[in-house]
Amino acid sequence: MRITVYRKAHFNAAHRLHNPSLSDTQNEEVFGKCNNPYYHGHNYELIVGVTGEVDPKTGYLIDMKVLSDFIKSEVEEHLDHKNLNEQVEEFKTMNPTAEHIAYVIYHRLKRVLPTELDLKITLYETPRNFVEYSGE
Amino acid sequence: MRITVYRKAHFNAAHRLHNPSLSDTQNEEVFGKCNNPYYHGHNYELIVGVTGEVDPKTGYLIDMKVLSDFIKSEVEEHLDHKNLNEQVEEFKTMNPTAEHIAYVIYHRLKRVLPTELDLKITLYETPRNFVEYSGE
Amino acid sequence: MRITVYRKAHFNAAHRLHNPSLSDTQNEEVFGKCNNPYYHGHNYELIVGVTGEVDPKTGYLIDMKVLSDFIKSEVEEHLDHKNLNEQVEEFKTMNPTAEHIAYVIYHRLKRVLPTELDLKITLYETPRNFVEYSGE
Amino acid sequence: MRITVYRKAHFNAAHRLHNPSLSDTQNEEVFGKCNNPYYHGHNYELIVGVTGEVDPKTGYLIDMKVLSDFIKSEVEEHLDHKNLNEQVEEFKTMNPTAEHIAYVIYHRLKRVLPTELDLKITLYETPRNFVEYSGE
Amino acid sequence: MRITVYRKAHFNAAHRLHNPSLSDTQNEEVFGKCNNPYYHGHNYELIVGVTGEVDPKTGYLIDMKVLSDFIKSEVEEHLDHKNLNEQVEEFKTMNPTAEHIAYVIYHRLKRVLPTELDLKITLYETPRNFVEYSGE
Amino acid sequence: MRITVYRKAHFNAAHRLHNPSLSDTQNEEVFGKCNNPYYHGHNYELIVGVTGEVDPKTGYLIDMKVLSDFIKSEVEEHLDHKNLNEQVEEFKTMNPTAEHIAYVIYHRLKRVLPTELDLKITLYETPRNFVEYSGE
Repeated sequence: MRITVYRKAHFNAAHRLHNPSLSDTQNEEVFGKCNNPYYHGHNYELIVGVTGEVDPKTGYLIDMKVLSDFIKSEVEEHLDHKNLNEQVEEFKTMNPTAEHIAYVIYHRLKRVLPTELDLKITLYETPRNFVEYSGE
Repeated sequence: MRITVYRKAHFNAAHRLHNPSLSDTQNEEVFGKCNNPYYHGHNYELIVGVTGEVDPKTGYLIDMKVLSDFIKSEVEEHLDHKNLNEQVEEFKTMNPTAEHIAYVIYHRLKRVLPTELDLKITLYETPRNFVEYSGE
Repeated sequence: MRITVYRKAHFNAAHRLHNPSLSDTQNEEVFGKCNNPYYHGHNYELIVGVTGEVDPKTGYLIDMKVLSDFIKSEVEEHLDHKNLNEQVEEFKTMNPTAEHIAYVIYHRLKRVLPTELDLKITLYETPRNFVEYSGE
Repeated sequence: MRITVYRKAHFNAAHRLHNPSLSDTQNEEVFGKCNNPYYHGHNYELIVGVTGEVDPKTGYLIDMKVLSDFIKSEVEEHLDHKNLNEQVEEFKTMNPTAEHIAYVIYHRLKRVLPTELDLKITLYETPRNFVEYSGE
Repeated sequence: MRITVYRKAHFNAAHRLHNPSLSDTQNEEVFGKCNNPYYHGHNYELIVGVTGEVDPKTGYLIDMKVLSDFIKSEVEEHLDHKNLNEQVEEFKTMNPTAEHIAYVIYHRLKRVLPTELDLKITLYETPRNFVEYSGE
Repeated sequence: MRITVYRKAHFNAAHRLHNPSLSDTQNEEVFGKCNNPYYHGHNYELIVGVTGEVDPKTGYLIDMKVLSDFIKSEVEEHLDHKNLNEQVEEFKTMNPTAEHIAYVIYHRLKRVLPTELDLKITLYETPRNFVEYSGE
């Protein structure tokens, strides 16, 4: 029996969109007010989806406590109440768009989860804009 | 890196469900109170999902401003505050069920989006009833 | 022990905003696209709040089954899947704005509820626009 | 034209997580406070997704009235306001985790739906924990 | 400057509605399926509202960490994953309706909060049924 | 007929909580991770409530277009995609807690709205924390 289990989480952070290989004028043209040098911020809503076989002993795909502890250590402690551009290693060289934040979260969780489980990340940057990434 | 980006939008409209090739009695039997000749209406909640490769220069799959402008010109200006049966070309010959409205929105957006992007339409007719269409 | 109990309900309807004592040009100026002569429509979300003393025998302010039956007979059967302007008595002479619909719902429920209970109507016309009326 | 139609529903129930083939100590270790012998409970939010071809006569994949009647008879009447462990046949021998409840709902609906339709069950145990099952 | 600050929380529990001073037949008549002797359950969503003066030093009415610690010790640890009738002192003699649960939560929080603050409890028993209590 | 009309809006911003009259150690003690010198951020959800008499000519308390234009010019253009501490006049001398942001929004809207209308501001800093201010 193959199933997907989802867990919602939340973090908030400051960021700005900026590609250092572009000029300031180009950055402003491409990213508009998201390029504000003083930063702006978001409440990021995260849905982590994990797919695999149900364990017949427990009836669980994965213990939700284990999954939410991974989300805590790998995502919340790494990103919550941070300035993504200034204080998060991965975004020193990568523009912190929703697409790239989903990519970083995917790879941080993938390396700690049992290897037989598939992973899907849904990340809301605002209630109207969100992205979905499964490692392709 | 392949990802899906989603944007939510909203429009409201009047409609009635009616198939002109059926008799009035048959229409009432099949569509019940949705066949009311004086129309009823809905707040339609729309989620547009676009799948493709992230642009390494911007870190975007697609600029959300561009996507929301397409939704504005192709969907909102075409359907918002309209009577679907009386005032929207496509529904003069097609019954405006949620299924068919999703089909029309899919094709209107598909023709303006870059051809390499896949498209998925989710349309809520009420908070409890919704449909999903990806062009199959 | 004085408490307020709330019950959510839902109906959808077509309407247009129009004041017959104004000219067509004035109506269009005041109501814009909401004046569309072919109608548009909404999913109305309704929250009915009832305030009074808890019955010590049941621990209920009011049996939710009784309250939801009143909402069914007085609101849903009267307004759901209707054209408000054409098919609902009260709106033949009253413009069906959210304010006036809340007023009509308030008075229809008030006359069937026990007289010692206070009543508050919250009506969402869209997820972003709503009104609250308590009979003042 | 192939589409998916979704219908939301709701039930609430008491349960406890317990595997009779484990000792009491092991059960408490694995399931923690979910193993409480006096039970706890949830509001389960259910989304039933049905995939297939749209009927050109009606513009429907399936009449929502028919789908919601199936959900009523197969799910709500079977599970709503019940103690899953004590009063629901399937859970006398199966641990009522969200994964297993989704499995049971899937198979109860699958046997009454037209065979050409695919089925997907999404079940929220809490607003933050949910599962998705499509019969694999 | 007088303001109200709100904090949402969550717990889930089993219960049954039953008044021991009524006969079994009367209990079933009054409470219907909520009287099921094997219990059913809910995800209770709680909103705690606290009103008072903003502290000019912090710009806070109350530190959210302090408020959410009170909610944890007084509400979540007392009610979460419990059988209200069997395992919660207050409901051994009081019928656990939403009205009475709100009453119990109000008084447990009131005695630990600074006395100059007003308190309002909103408790959702299901997404469609909720109550509001402020100590009157 | 006296009624309240509500309009939802949205902005996002970076901020940090910091009282310059306290030492750095005291600031960290009082505000914890919200004191991060590199800022963090939020999606602020705003509900503006306006109370008064319904205009018998229009059936409106206030034209929603007028109200949402005020919200745009006074709130969104002033706060959206900004660093509140660095780029918003009022927060150069006032700590940008949710309480104080609600206060600033209240006074900016109060001075442009017709004087006979009462005003209530509800501001969500996160989906679980929010404040309500009506000018007291």
